Amino acid sequence: MDRMTDSPAMSALLDRLLTWRRDVRHFRTDPVPEPLLDTLRAAMDKAPSVGNARPWRVLRVENPALRGQVQALFERCNRAARDSYDTPAAADYAQLKLAGIDRAPVQLAVFTETAPMEGRGLGRQTMPQTLEQSTAMAVHTLWLVARAQGLGLGMMSILDPAEMARLCRVPASWRFFSYLCIGFPEFEDDTPLLHRSGWQANTATRWDRC
Amino acid sequence: MDRMTDSPAMSALLDRLLTWRRDVRHFRTDPVPEPLLDTLRAAMDKAPSVGNARPWRVLRVENPALRGQVQALFERCNRAARDSYDTPAAADYAQLKLAGIDRAPVQLAVFTETAPMEGRGLGRQTMPQTLEQSTAMAVHTLWLVARAQGLGLGMMSILDPAEMARLCRVPASWRFFSYLCIGFPEFEDDTPLLHRSGWQANTATRWDRC
Repeated sequence: MDRMTDSPAMSALLDRLLTWRRDVRHFRTDPVPEPLLDTLRAAMDKAPSVGNARPWRVLRVENPALRGQVQALFERCNRAARDSYDTPAAADYAQLKLAGIDRAPVQLAVFTETAPMEGRGLGRQTMPQTLEQSTAMAVHTLWLVARAQGLGLGMMSILDPAEMARLCRVPASWRFFSYLCIGFPEFEDDTPLLHRSGWQANTATRWDRC
Repeated sequence: MDRMTDSPAMSALLDRLLTWRRDVRHFRTDPVPEPLLDTLRAAMDKAPSVGNARPWRVLRVENPALRGQVQALFERCNRAARDSYDTPAAADYAQLKLAGIDRAPVQLAVFTETAPMEGRGLGRQTMPQTLEQSTAMAVHTLWLVARAQGLGLGMMSILDPAEMARLCRVPASWRFFSYLCIGFPEFEDDTPLLHRSGWQANTATRWDRC
């Protein structure tokens, strides 16, 4: 592969990609072509990984019964979350569109292997959570590549992790990371839904000196 | 800002960027221009964040005494990690270049605010670790933007997190994430150092059905 020689073009495009990448909750139901999904899957191979351990484990949830169970679990967890807020925050919360499980054509359950052979333990003796950090970066890689291909991705965390492990029958060493919905978006936006809905405005990153 | 209309060009460039993004441990010592650092800092604002909480906290470590303390802490933790391996893995480990603290012109200590007001708790009742997932994606965003600008970034996790919090005098609610070294790289490579050194070969991501 060519070396990177066009840094200005790269920077400009990346900035646009980051600006238009969004957590998508509104999906069209038409299927995503398999070759495009292969591209997404392969992109995860290029994610950074502490110790090169690549501990992310991805299950493609196709079974309608299992999808239904995940949806039911989300509804239960989401109700509990809503009930934990006082009025009027609970009413605000109830207005949010937090899932796209009902429509997204592609759904992935992502886990972290907490005891991988790969990597030989490097970099996780002081910080075991580096494994989950790697999974997060692999999911973010997938997110950006999906967006560049015109797809939307929504990441769902309002799910009981132990229950997700049970539903997906994963090994005991796998820890639930998140549930990803993927499909063509119904609309595009450069402002997060949670900002637009008034739940939480954007804040700026500072780099304080120390 | 223009909408994303040039998806094929975007995809090709992103693939090249992901391929050439590396964890860099060999830095040139010339300084990074401040406007370029502003670009990197601003890019983190575009990272995904559960609940739009943006819990990453970044400290720019400039003080030479503090840099020395971090370097000493790394050497202590790295020695302990090396000693945990049997021969010949311990010898393999000792050959690895795991830090660039001695030379990198820009050094950032990254933490996660575990009790942010922003986001109003959304998405972390079932999974408190979503905050650290967000920090990981913000660091990955920074990594890609740095690479697109010709800079290299190395992420260091072989540091005792409690000791890092003490050295940087952060609030009790901040949890150490990683230490980032940034600068112009001495060389470019499309293969991870840990693969090239024989520590851990690359493995492919599978999406099994369930």
